Parts: sequence; C-alpha cells; structure tokens
Amino acid sequence: MSAIANEFIQQTTRLSNEVTQPFPNSRKVYVQGSRADVQIPMREVTLSATHSSQGSEENLPVFLYDTSGPYTDPGVRIDLLAGLPALRTPWITERGDTEQLAAPSSDFGRRQDDPALNHLRFEHLRIPRRAAAGGNVTQLHYARAGIITPEMEYCAIRENLRLDELHRDPRYARLLRQHRGQSFGAALPESITPAFVRDEVARGRAIIPANINHPELEPMIIGRNFRVKINTNIGNSAVTSSIADEVEKMVWSARWGGDTLMDLSTGKNIHETREWILRNAPMPIGTVPIYQALEKVDGRPEELTWEIFRDTLIEQAEQGVDYFTIHAGVLLRYVPLTADRLTGIVSRGGSIMAKWCLAHHQENFLYTHFEETCEILNAYDVAFSLGDGLRPGSVADANDAAQFAELETLGKLTRIAWQHDVQVMIEGPGHVPLQMIKENMDKELTDCFEAPFYTLGPLITDIAPAYDHITSGIGATNIGWYGTAMLCYVTPKEHLGLPTKQDVRDGIVTYKIAAHAADLAKGLPGAQVRDNALSKARFEFRWDDQFNLSLDPERAREYHDQTMPNESHKVAHFCSMCGPHFCAMRITQDVRDYAKAHRLEDLEVAIAEGMKEKAQEFVQEGAKIYQEV
Amino acid sequence: MSAIANEFIQQTTRLSNEVTQPFPNSRKVYVQGSRADVQIPMREVTLSATHSSQGSEENLPVFLYDTSGPYTDPGVRIDLLAGLPALRTPWITERGDTEQLAAPSSDFGRRQDDPALNHLRFEHLRIPRRAAAGGNVTQLHYARAGIITPEMEYCAIRENLRLDELHRDPRYARLLRQHRGQSFGAALPESITPAFVRDEVARGRAIIPANINHPELEPMIIGRNFRVKINTNIGNSAVTSSIADEVEKMVWSARWGGDTLMDLSTGKNIHETREWILRNAPMPIGTVPIYQALEKVDGRPEELTWEIFRDTLIEQAEQGVDYFTIHAGVLLRYVPLTADRLTGIVSRGGSIMAKWCLAHHQENFLYTHFEETCEILNAYDVAFSLGDGLRPGSVADANDAAQFAELETLGKLTRIAWQHDVQVMIEGPGHVPLQMIKENMDKELTDCFEAPFYTLGPLITDIAPAYDHITSGIGATNIGWYGTAMLCYVTPKEHLGLPTKQDVRDGIVTYKIAAHAADLAKGLPGAQVRDNALSKARFEFRWDDQFNLSLDPERAREYHDQTMPNESHKVAHFCSMCGPHFCAMRITQDVRDYAKAHRLEDLEVAIAEGMKEKAQEFVQEGAKIYQEV
Repeated sequence: MSAIANEFIQQTTRLSNEVTQPFPNSRKVYVQGSRADVQIPMREVTLSATHSSQGSEENLPVFLYDTSGPYTDPGVRIDLLAGLPALRTPWITERGDTEQLAAPSSDFGRRQDDPALNHLRFEHLRIPRRAAAGGNVTQLHYARAGIITPEMEYCAIRENLRLDELHRDPRYARLLRQHRGQSFGAALPESITPAFVRDEVARGRAIIPANINHPELEPMIIGRNFRVKINTNIGNSAVTSSIADEVEKMVWSARWGGDTLMDLSTGKNIHETREWILRNAPMPIGTVPIYQALEKVDGRPEELTWEIFRDTLIEQAEQGVDYFTIHAGVLLRYVPLTADRLTGIVSRGGSIMAKWCLAHHQENFLYTHFEETCEILNAYDVAFSLGDGLRPGSVADANDAAQFAELETLGKLTRIAWQHDVQVMIEGPGHVPLQMIKENMDKELTDCFEAPFYTLGPLITDIAPAYDHITSGIGATNIGWYGTAMLCYVTPKEHLGLPTKQDVRDGIVTYKIAAHAADLAKGLPGAQVRDNALSKARFEFRWDDQFNLSLDPERAREYHDQTMPNESHKVAHFCSMCGPHFCAMRITQDVRDYAKAHRLEDLEVAIAEGMKEKAQEFVQEGAKIYQEV
Repeated sequence: MSAIANEFIQQTTRLSNEVTQPFPNSRKVYVQGSRADVQIPMREVTLSATHSSQGSEENLPVFLYDTSGPYTDPGVRIDLLAGLPALRTPWITERGDTEQLAAPSSDFGRRQDDPALNHLRFEHLRIPRRAAAGGNVTQLHYARAGIITPEMEYCAIRENLRLDELHRDPRYARLLRQHRGQSFGAALPESITPAFVRDEVARGRAIIPANINHPELEPMIIGRNFRVKINTNIGNSAVTSSIADEVEKMVWSARWGGDTLMDLSTGKNIHETREWILRNAPMPIGTVPIYQALEKVDGRPEELTWEIFRDTLIEQAEQGVDYFTIHAGVLLRYVPLTADRLTGIVSRGGSIMAKWCLAHHQENFLYTHFEETCEILNAYDVAFSLGDGLRPGSVADANDAAQFAELETLGKLTRIAWQHDVQVMIEGPGHVPLQMIKENMDKELTDCFEAPFYTLGPLITDIAPAYDHITSGIGATNIGWYGTAMLCYVTPKEHLGLPTKQDVRDGIVTYKIAAHAADLAKGLPGAQVRDNALSKARFEFRWDDQFNLSLDPERAREYHDQTMPNESHKVAHFCSMCGPHFCAMRITQDVRDYAKAHRLEDLEVAIAEGMKEKAQEFVQEGAKIYQEV
C-alpha cells in the first residue's frame, strides 16, 4: 500500500465524522428518470408539525438541490482508494461513438509508468476514451441533433426539484407563493423539461460540462435560465497543501454546495493530485492547463510552446477534466491597453500569456491554435471556459478598453468553438464597482451571443481584504440577478493567503446566498419555497426546523446555543434578543389570538372611526384577521 | 466608589489595550473650522514609499472619516467615570435660546434621587437644558433661518475630508481618479460646504441628530447627498448583559466605524445604562422610547398610556438622546392588512402598538398625540426616526399593502414634524428580495418628500441564519446605492442570539463595505481614493500599507500571518496564493520592465502584424507601454 493510500485510509475515517455526515433531518432521496440508471439525488428536509392553540398542522418536507454526491448517503460505502461509481459509463458506451484507447495518448500521461511516482498514484487508473473516428461526442452536438441524452434528462430533473409534483399538491400552495421576478430577458420556464435543457444547450445558452472520461460525474447544467451555480477553487501550491488535503477540500466543497470545482494546483505532482480528485469527484472539474504547462517549463513563460500546451490538454482531457480555462483572448495588441492601469494584469493566465507574447513578438499561441484546441476538446467533450486574462484587479481598472477588447475576442472565439460543437462559457471579472456591473453582463450577452457567463465576484470595492467573500458576494448577487450563470466563489483569504476549510465553508455559504438571491430576483419558479418554509418555522418558533432549512444548519444551531444553550430553548416561544416577556413574534401571536376572538368588535371600531372603505375591504376579504396560522 | 464605577475602572484598563488602540500607522489629526473650538477629527494613514527598479516614490497619506471619538487619540485621557468633554456646550449656550432647568422635568427622571440606585448611577450628572420660552433650538430651524451653526460647519469639514486640498495637490491626481457614478437623482456636490449642509438640512433631505443635552457629540450628518452612514445597535435585555458591557460595546462600535448607535435595552436599569452611554458617546444615540415605557407597565402593552410615554420622551430627551424611533404609523386600520402575512408583525414596536390598538379599540396614541410629541422633540432638538412597525419579516411579506400603507402615513407625519421644525428620518425594511428593493427606495422618496431613509438591511433571502450580516449587507449595498442615507447594521447573530464583540465587528465591517460601495456607486467625490491607494499598495506588494488602509487592518494582517507568518513575508514580492515563482503581479512587473526596454520592437511587431490601427492609437498615446509604475 502506498504512502498516499495509507494517508487516505486515515482520512476516510476523518471524512466520515466531519464531512460525510448528512445535515440534521436531511435524507438523500433519488428521483428516477426514464431509465433505471438515471437516478437523481435530492436532499429531503423533514420538518416537525406546528402546534398552536388552533391545533396541529403538518409541515411538508422541502426538497433541496444536492451537490454533495454519494458522500452524504449513508447507504453508499465511500472508498476514496477505489473512487466513486462510474454512473455515466453505460450512457457513454451505449452511444457507440467513442473508442477505448490502448493507453494515454499524451506524452505526459505516460508518466503513469514512472515507478518513482508509485507512492502517489491513484491505484485504479481507468484507460481513457476518445471520440471514435468520425464520432462527435459533445452534449452540444447531441442537442443540435435533437437528441435528449441521459445527461440532459438528469439535469432537467435535478433542476426541477419535484416542482411539478408540488404544484399538484394543494398543501404546498402557500409555500409556493412567490414574488414576480425581474429577469432582464432571461427565459425561465415554469417547469424544466429535458427538451428545454436540450434546446438551451443547442442554443449555446447553457452547457453541461461532462467529459467522457469523467463517468463519476453527476451531471449539472450552467445557463442563465437555470439555477445560478457556484464554482469553488482548490489547489496545492508551492507554499503548502498535500494531495490528501485537496481531496478532502473537494468533498468538503461538495457538502456545502459547490456545483463545480476548479483544481488550480501549481505545485508538484499536479497530475497525480488531479487523478485522485477526478476519481472521487461527483461535480464537474475545471482546470487552467497553462498552469501545468508552465510547471513543465520550470515556471518560465517564455519557454512555453504550443506543443507542450497541446500535450497538456490531451493529458488532462484523458484524465477527465470537464472544462478548461484558456486565455486565448489575451492578444498581443491588447497588452498596451493595460499600460495606464493601476494594477496591470492580475490574472495569472493572462500575465503568463502577455509575457509570452512580448518575449516572442508573436500573437498568443492559444489564439493562433484555437481551432486545433477545439478539435481536442471536441474529442472528449471538454467545455471551454474562455478566460478573462485582462480582467481588472482593482475598481479603478474596471470596464476599461483592455477588458472589453478581450471580451469581444472571446465572442469571436465562441463562434469558432460552436462551429466545432464545443461547449463554451465565458469568464468575467474581477473588481467592478456596483454601478458598472450591469454593463459587463449586457456586453457579455451581446458580444458572446448569450454563452453562459461565469464570473469571479465581482468585488465592488478594494478596501476590505479579509472580507472579500463579502465584497465579492455583493457583486456576485447583482451580476447573478442580471444574468450570470455561474459565480466563482471567493473566500475571506482572497488577496491574503490560502483558505482553510472554514474559509472554504464561509466562501461557499456566501456564494450560495448570492446564487439563491439571484434566483429569487430573477423569479426562478419555486425558488422561494425554502425561504417560505424557513420563515414559517421561524415565526412559529420551530427552532430546529429553522436551523435545518438554513444554508448552514450547524452554525445556525451553534450561534443559538451560544446565547441559549439549553435544549429546552429549542422549543421556547421566545428568542434571546427580547427574552421571554418581550418578543415581537410572541406578541404578534397574542394579537392574532385576540383578533380572532374580537373579530366583530374590531370591525365595529373600524366603522365607527369612519374607515368605511377599509371596513368594506375587510368584509370583502371574508372578515378574517389572522385566521390562518 | 460605587460598584459600577469600580467595574468601569477595571474596564478602562481593558479598553486601553483592546478598544482604544489606534490602528497601525494611523494618527488622529484635527482640522480647524472657522473658530478655534471647531476641531474636526480625521484619521491620517501614513504609507511607506514605493521602491522599484525605477527608483523610489513617496506615497502620500490618506485621510479617513473617523468615528472613533477621543478614544483613539493618545493625547486624550479617557475617564469613563467623568464622561467625554462637552465640546458643544459653548455653541449651545452662545445661541442664547435655551434655559438650564432646576432639575429633570420628567417624573421618571427624578429617579436620580433614589439612593437605592446610587451604586449604578453615573456620578457627574448634568442638569438638563430645554428651549427657553419662545426658543426654537433645532438644526432644522436654524437652517431654515439661513444660519450656519458650528454643528453644520463641523459636518461639512468632516464629510469633505480635505478633498479640496487634495485636488490642489497634483501628486494626488492619480489617486483621485474615479469612475462616474449612477446617482439616481441624488445631488452629490463636488465639494461639501457648510452652506450646502445648511441647505440640505433646511430642505429636510438631511438631518444632524444633536440633542442640546448631548454636548459630548461629534456632529455628523445623515442624508443621501453625503456619505452613507451606518447605525449599530447595543442594549442589554432580560437575558444577558451588564451596563459596563454596553459601554464597552459602544466604544467598540465607534472604533470600527459605527456612525450612530441605538441603545435598545429592554432589561433593568435602562435609565442608568443610557446615562453611562450618553456621557461617553461621541456619536448620536437613538432609542425606542416605547421599550422603556413598556418596562414601566411591567411588559403589558395594553397598560401603556400617552402620559407614561410622554414622560419617557421627556426623561430621555433630557438625558440627551439624539433620535427617537416612534412607531406612529401603525394605524388600527392597517393591522388587518397583515392578516395574510407569512410572518405577521415582527417589529417589536409595531407589535406593541398593534396590540394596544386592538386592546383599546382605539387609534394608536403615538399617532393621535403626534403634534404634542413634535413639541417635546422640538424643545431639545431630538430627531424623529419614524419607525416601520409593519416592516416585512420575510421575503414573502415584502412590499405588501401593510408596509406601504404605513410608509404613506409616515410621509404625512413627516410634513407635520417639519411644520414643528423637527428633523425626521424614515425607517425602512426588513426582508425584501433584490428585485423589489428599488421600489422601496423610490416610494420612500416620493411619499416622504426625500426625508432621509434609514433601513435595516434589507435581507434579500431568509435562508441563511448565522450569515444575515451578509444577506442584509447585500440588500443594504443596493438600497444605499439607490439612495438610503443610513444603514442599520445586522450581525451574524441576527434571528439567533445576542451579538458578541466579534459579531459586532463583523456586522460593522460588513456595513462599512455596503456604505462605501454605495458611495462609490453613486459617485461620491473622492470615495475611490482609499480603493486606489490600497490597490496601489497591493500591486506593489506593500503588504503593511495594504493592511493599514483596509477596513480591518488587524484581521487582514492576521489572515496573512496564517499562511505567511514571517515578518520577511510582509515585504515579499509574492503572495501565498501563487508562491515566489509564479505570481501574476510579479509577472506583470516583469512584463512592464520588458516592455519598457523593448518599446520600439513591440511597435514594429504590431505594425508587421497588420495592426496598423492599434499601432496608430499607440503612437497617439505617446508610445508608452507601462511607463508609469
């Protein structure tokens, strides 16, 4: 047994206590699609009944989108050494358009034969697949051909969260009440169907990142007519982190709600780290291949070549990476546009390519070789995440000529990728003050033909290091509302250091807030159910239900415990803010009871005071004050 | 020496270590107004020089708005037992329109004669003042009469932050660069003058809460054409907290940037607690007098009377409370409008008054006695904060008929208050989804004639207890942008428990982010200086300057230390995210150096590649790539 395997065995034990435990009163349920092997996981939160002077009332379970994968299913035995079950393998093989290779076809992929790395290597390496000659294996290709793949059906059912059933159940009527959204031209359907998923993918307005070499993946969709998603980042670096830590962070990210995950490793053993992550990852995994290419030339950007980069693409595609950030829009002629900036070029990928361009007096090879890149990505169904290498690193540099010139180029590249049936999303800034965010979104939709926007923040001020999950979460909420499909999270350690697990949790919860608030603001059908159920629990002093429905049940309970530690307080009809004799909610309940008893008198008073109009309304409404609890 | 005094003496020692220490490289400076006793404090942050291959460059100091009062001035000896210096006393007495009373004129105020409370009592009680017969002592009255008071001049200089001087200094030109704001009809001036302050107060569009019995106050202004302010809350309750703790929280709030503070105490000894707070408070203090009135009738709302409330108003006005939250808009006929709500009435004041109305079959006595209330507030210059007793407690209840009916009534009351020369601000929600926030702001401006809006959050989703500083901070940023003048902070403990000092800090910093981001978004002149200075420091790896310019220098440094603990890392030209050999900022610097050396060649390449248009632009711009650092 290898050293790393041994470390994992120890870690598996730790995971079972800290990371894999389901949230309280939450249960993993599966909804079956049109075939037995399409099983979509959801999180069912069961609630306690309401007890009041009017009697008891059942509170129906709430179904939540579940990103946590098999880790929170007590019925699944987790074995990090073996990896997750390959649930997509039958779907991929049945399509008959792929071939199993004899061995990895990249030069670097053959490093798996190096015995010196045995102690680090994932033990059950799968032989990669590739599109067969003449085959076209992307979800975009299938969608354009009118085919609904199991992946598409999976996404549809996952997004829908049983909403059709809830609408048929009159007991959900009150919880389903929702304000009208302001959607800025998004076309949110009342009910997400597999055909709608297919059509959005075909239109290029949504992507399903799902490499044929990542069969462990639970498919998800990124597009502005679906739930807003969040991406999290992990990655070791020259400074710190081990493989085992990265895998643990990946599972941790899944538990808290990360929809996709980027492995931004820059240190040693990038290849091996990624293998461990991919084989255990239920979510799409993205990378920035130029980072690894740079490692291969010992960190000297000027020594990068297309050949090294190409080999890296193939290496990672054959491992199963689902989307690649590629900074093909950093053109030589755009570099001078950053001369007057306060903070120059702050994207790592962008600065690497800028340096390469200047060193060689040549156009960015990611741009000049873009068509070949499309062919590679097409062969494995890797999606593009076209990187914004010239994004602003300060509010001073927001929305400048460099940023927008690159964005226009990304639009042109989007069209080329689509010609190759390769899925595309577009990366966005960065640091942008609040009043300039919408311009970014609008420009992206126009210049990039509605390809999904995937933004980092944006941070709406530069003055709060240590709180940049918040400065960026504010920008993210707004840009999500305006139409961004996926938000790249930021942790409190942004600009300062490497995030701990708690930082990751803080970053994810902040971004779940942003994504959910954007869903509410756009008017995503059913988005308000969770708010309504939680507020009802809050108003009825069902403390445990309030905690269990929240984004972070553990911290909500912990904070309540700090002031009111006794278990009896969890059923108390008062809160710590006001104490037992002085609580607004309690008084409101008293008011309701009183009003119920004195209904007629109140009406008389209303009339006596000349409020005839109000009184008439009152009668028309059935003369009920607080009849419902 | 009383027990409480003894406790304070111990606490003073603690304050000097934890709460009164100036931030690193920050120094309190004073700008003198038109008279020697108008001395406006500011925080000057000095920065280190930039050293690069191009030589050294001085970085000019940055001036920040300083709410911390004398506590962070090492030249002032703090004595909580004596209270702060009464800096406004000469201004008040010189106006010759007030009279010193023989003793407090409220019944309850005479409790100061009760020897049983000696151990709790602030020792140096000041005899209260009131407007002399025929006198009119409000800032609104003076402003309407065309008078610029020292309070107005103080606010003007404080808001201006030496901006006029900076504009005259060419070395600040780059730091003063700022994006155009989107102000939604606000009229932000290029330079804040005392006359502008007077005119905004006269117009009712801004208020200066400054009770004549709170001479310790450092005047500040609340209005949408000035910096967005934040309010913090403290207050003991039946469950927890002592007087000493509350005073410490007040000083703590001042240090982190709270502009005003509400004492929401509901427990024992409200009167004595408030006296200690007021005598040591450099910021305006607000209260909700109905809370204390309710204590006087043992928590039974139905036993409240106008007489008890009236006596409470006088009692608190004579102590020096600067603004009163009064829920005079909760009308009897509006109560039924809340019947269908998910979360009923969640404002404490609102539910108390609703209960009183129903119990007595009578209109809210705060409404029927509003003119008398105006007369009392006028006599001491207490400002109204007209409470939103029917604010929504869940996103489901946002912007409903009850909320908006009350808002319209608050507008009518505003006009009445203005007839009495009483200053007014309007309280706002609550829980409101993002797309419905602007409607609140617009309606307030219309219905309440542009009286300053003072909003709690709003929270843009209900699903994140333990993170409601964030859910509300997002709403606060947006409503601040749209025109809210002051944001009432929310801590992570909202809905769950009583905030600790760390929760207060988290809440304040989150709201400083919101207020500042709103200033940037509206285009407040000079707002971006701090962002620019910090980003320049960040880009130049001046780590200490980056920390010192941030909203929380201590936490920024602490987070950096977690990953890079050595002091040498504070001057390192790399960050922990990428490590020493792989850093975007470092590479950009390399790109700059390279570009500088190869300027002509780059131009030739550009021309060779047919990019003539770009090349021409390049020449027109002076052919400089990265000439500035």
